Amino acid sequence: MIGFNNGIYQDLTKISIPITSISINRGYGAFEFLELLNGKPFYGDRHLKRFLKTLNILKLKTDFDDQLEQILKDLIEANDLRDSYIKLFALPHDSNFHEFYQSALYVFPTEMPNYPASFYSDGVQLAMKQFDRFLPLAKSTNYLAGQFWMNELTDERIVDILFHDGETVQETSRGNVFMVKDGAVVTPAEGVLKGVTRGLVLELLPEQGILHVEAPVRLPMLLTADEVFLTSTTKHILPVVKIDDHVISDGKPGEITKKVIQLFEQLRTNFIAKESN
Amino acid sequence: MIGFNNGIYQDLTKISIPITSISINRGYGAFEFLELLNGKPFYGDRHLKRFLKTLNILKLKTDFDDQLEQILKDLIEANDLRDSYIKLFALPHDSNFHEFYQSALYVFPTEMPNYPASFYSDGVQLAMKQFDRFLPLAKSTNYLAGQFWMNELTDERIVDILFHDGETVQETSRGNVFMVKDGAVVTPAEGVLKGVTRGLVLELLPEQGILHVEAPVRLPMLLTADEVFLTSTTKHILPVVKIDDHVISDGKPGEITKKVIQLFEQLRTNFIAKESN
Repeated sequence: MIGFNNGIYQDLTKISIPITSISINRGYGAFEFLELLNGKPFYGDRHLKRFLKTLNILKLKTDFDDQLEQILKDLIEANDLRDSYIKLFALPHDSNFHEFYQSALYVFPTEMPNYPASFYSDGVQLAMKQFDRFLPLAKSTNYLAGQFWMNELTDERIVDILFHDGETVQETSRGNVFMVKDGAVVTPAEGVLKGVTRGLVLELLPEQGILHVEAPVRLPMLLTADEVFLTSTTKHILPVVKIDDHVISDGKPGEITKKVIQLFEQLRTNFIAKESN
Repeated sequence: MIGFNNGIYQDLTKISIPITSISINRGYGAFEFLELLNGKPFYGDRHLKRFLKTLNILKLKTDFDDQLEQILKDLIEANDLRDSYIKLFALPHDSNFHEFYQSALYVFPTEMPNYPASFYSDGVQLAMKQFDRFLPLAKSTNYLAGQFWMNELTDERIVDILFHDGETVQETSRGNVFMVKDGAVVTPAEGVLKGVTRGLVLELLPEQGILHVEAPVRLPMLLTADEVFLTSTTKHILPVVKIDDHVISDGKPGEITKKVIQLFEQLRTNFIAKESN
């Protein structure tokens, strides 16, 4: 597998960063992650735009900020990638800071686990934790809390940690949360990373005449919702049927959630068909 | 410079970690940092004990957990180190988790900047931010917030960020905070990393008949204190004369702070004399 090592295309197993890097010592870096469908980045422009936004928030700059699209193309060709994922990192290696950190850019293919079909048909669970993500609008490498809490879980149906601030919920450690009440879809907009899948769902809903609103979601609202679902680049749309000990509605995926799953899979199918022409 | 790369002693510039490491992607790792005085680790046993505690909290294990002292000795000899610093990292590289992450151990010498003498004679400043450190008893690599906020500062006399929770103060991003009121010394004990220098100061005070207590420090208490000082492995004891826009007392280092600085420097001198015999 070939990766991009700050200007050089080389074997991924040979790409490494110095142990003295400030990105290790201080957990400081930008991250992005996108999917390839039939060799094309699925809404890659949105992922690259968000990566640049993260760089801006974290005050990072690389020598390749205006060449990201070409680097993706080169990697897809070099590895003959079809259905795969790609990770991007911008990592500062020394602590010189003058308005920004000069950072090295790393881009490489990666595989992700497939979730069992039963997760989509029967739904999954979330565990809740009170936690404020630092700079939530940036997709940084600052994932210690989510990773730590995931390791505490023993039930594989609990797929992610849902963060709240004691009053409202924000997002999961690696995705966005939506709730449905009386036919309307609600998702938080403040203090969350604006997921690409989240944005696509918000665009799909009006076409189907489904009411939606971006608004704070209070904990009691969420736990008494008719439906809850999760969005992420790897998970797509996952029905959530239990949060901690609270069963959502009748504990089965709801009709609007099923509709959103269907709409999103159709969007992916259409993307593949369009890009293959 | 020779470093320890998970079992191999090699040139530090050749030690690197794979870009695919989960320690990068998730900002997940243990960190420790200690000083050498005349070729001997200054209270190295306490630093190594804390490193093992961090490993335990973060559920990390290395193949060398019981050989840390020997590795320090080997590195000191290989590099002929006298007055220097050493960093230790335990980093998990893959996401396999069964009660713990198998992690690689890295140990290597490092240099640190000297602080100007005026910082000790005239005092320094702190900036305050509301922030909850995740797993505060672990010295992890999770420093994004502190590093980010430090870069926002333009005044070099502001040496660190002081974290508070809206009601009480905890610690700075890389040190512990003490206050003095009516001759008694107070430092927070809950939700803070127990610094080695902090512990040494708490042991030095009773010998001098100075009252001290470990107790929550409320924001108004701190800002109206008679004296404030900061402790850290690199900074030793630094008088704090201003926090945000609040001048502490008359804006000059206080008498007890000066006494603590003197006691701590004496401890270092005694350590060197004792270890040289």
